[in-house]
Amino acid sequence: MKPKAVILVSGGLDSATVLAMASDQGYETYALSLDYGQRHRSELEAAARVAKALGAAEHRVIKLDLTGWGGSALTDSHIDVPMSAAATPAGAIPVTYVPARNTIFLSLALAWAEAIGAVDIFAGMNAVDYSGYPDCRPEYIEAYQTMARLATKSGVEGGAITIHTPIIRMGKAEIIQTGMRLGVDYSNTVSCYNADEQGRACGACDSCRLRKEGFVAAGVADPTRYVN
Amino acid sequence: MKPKAVILVSGGLDSATVLAMASDQGYETYALSLDYGQRHRSELEAAARVAKALGAAEHRVIKLDLTGWGGSALTDSHIDVPMSAAATPAGAIPVTYVPARNTIFLSLALAWAEAIGAVDIFAGMNAVDYSGYPDCRPEYIEAYQTMARLATKSGVEGGAITIHTPIIRMGKAEIIQTGMRLGVDYSNTVSCYNADEQGRACGACDSCRLRKEGFVAAGVADPTRYVN
Repeated sequence: MKPKAVILVSGGLDSATVLAMASDQGYETYALSLDYGQRHRSELEAAARVAKALGAAEHRVIKLDLTGWGGSALTDSHIDVPMSAAATPAGAIPVTYVPARNTIFLSLALAWAEAIGAVDIFAGMNAVDYSGYPDCRPEYIEAYQTMARLATKSGVEGGAITIHTPIIRMGKAEIIQTGMRLGVDYSNTVSCYNADEQGRACGACDSCRLRKEGFVAAGVADPTRYVN
Repeated sequence: MKPKAVILVSGGLDSATVLAMASDQGYETYALSLDYGQRHRSELEAAARVAKALGAAEHRVIKLDLTGWGGSALTDSHIDVPMSAAATPAGAIPVTYVPARNTIFLSLALAWAEAIGAVDIFAGMNAVDYSGYPDCRPEYIEAYQTMARLATKSGVEGGAITIHTPIIRMGKAEIIQTGMRLGVDYSNTVSCYNADEQGRACGACDSCRLRKEGFVAAGVADPTRYVN
């Protein structure tokens, strides 16, 4: 019997690649998505397509309303999503940072893992593209894993809970090349901060820019559907 | 201006005491409750009464459906709540343990704290009464705090995020005596795992037993409303 793993799947390019990697490593995959008041439902629809296409044993969406809290351009409609990297000064934390987001997401993954008897969790944090986000750094992931082993029944009983972040040090081109080798269909994914209801990307935001450059650098035709 | 603190308030005796302690220490208090599919709404109604009575600046309830995951008598109606301590063997983790519950709750508190500019979080974990729960141990709290300082914008920018667990080593009688001194009206609180819709306690479950013994040991009249 294959070991089970919980994989955080957002509907974007990075987490789709991570799901394919977990499957390739021999895990039975349980895809978890969070409905936290993102600007567009198209992300969650993309997550469902990705989970199905990559053969997840199950896909769950947990609803959690963070829109009332503000503090981020991704959940607060009063803050504009920056359209270029120049909008974020070097060393600063971008306005698209959502307070404690990865901590909340990993905690829900940890709970589901424990409920299904899994000790492996995969997540698509990336320290290269998201260098301004504190909760995308390897030292954060390591501290989270230490905490998780103390937090849970499985941890206490000797299960070595492991937070796998296989793309944390990869550039976008390497992520795309890895996914292509594993058969990921990136036309299923949506990375854009401003995607429309059909999941078409704006082509101009930070996330679109990184993704476009990644396909060029990987030497792969960009399958993204753009508004223009 | 008073510093702000987020306090996890369940509606029970322990967290009401912690809220009073945070307020007594000079914090402006922000009470956070989680609606995670508990067996009775009376817990959340108790939380609202407690927050109001103890002067919280704000009380928020975050809805998060964990009932589908199972794995605990508190969220899975197929598992019976044990009616006596004898039902849990020494050293075992009780069936009332909810997978990763405190990790999820602290993570939501951390997000709210960051959104309102607070670096202090108070929670009512207790290592004496809940000795079988991995996520009530001081070493878990310490690991959580280390992780939280790496996870957040405020942590990275030098704010020393602190997880306060002021009753972690107190027995029930000491908790009650502390709360009485700070003016907590324990008739507002509900601790019972099987409380009815009016918030009346069963008087027989583990939680009722601990609470009853606590009032006796504290030498304080028990204000709990029991079904019988």
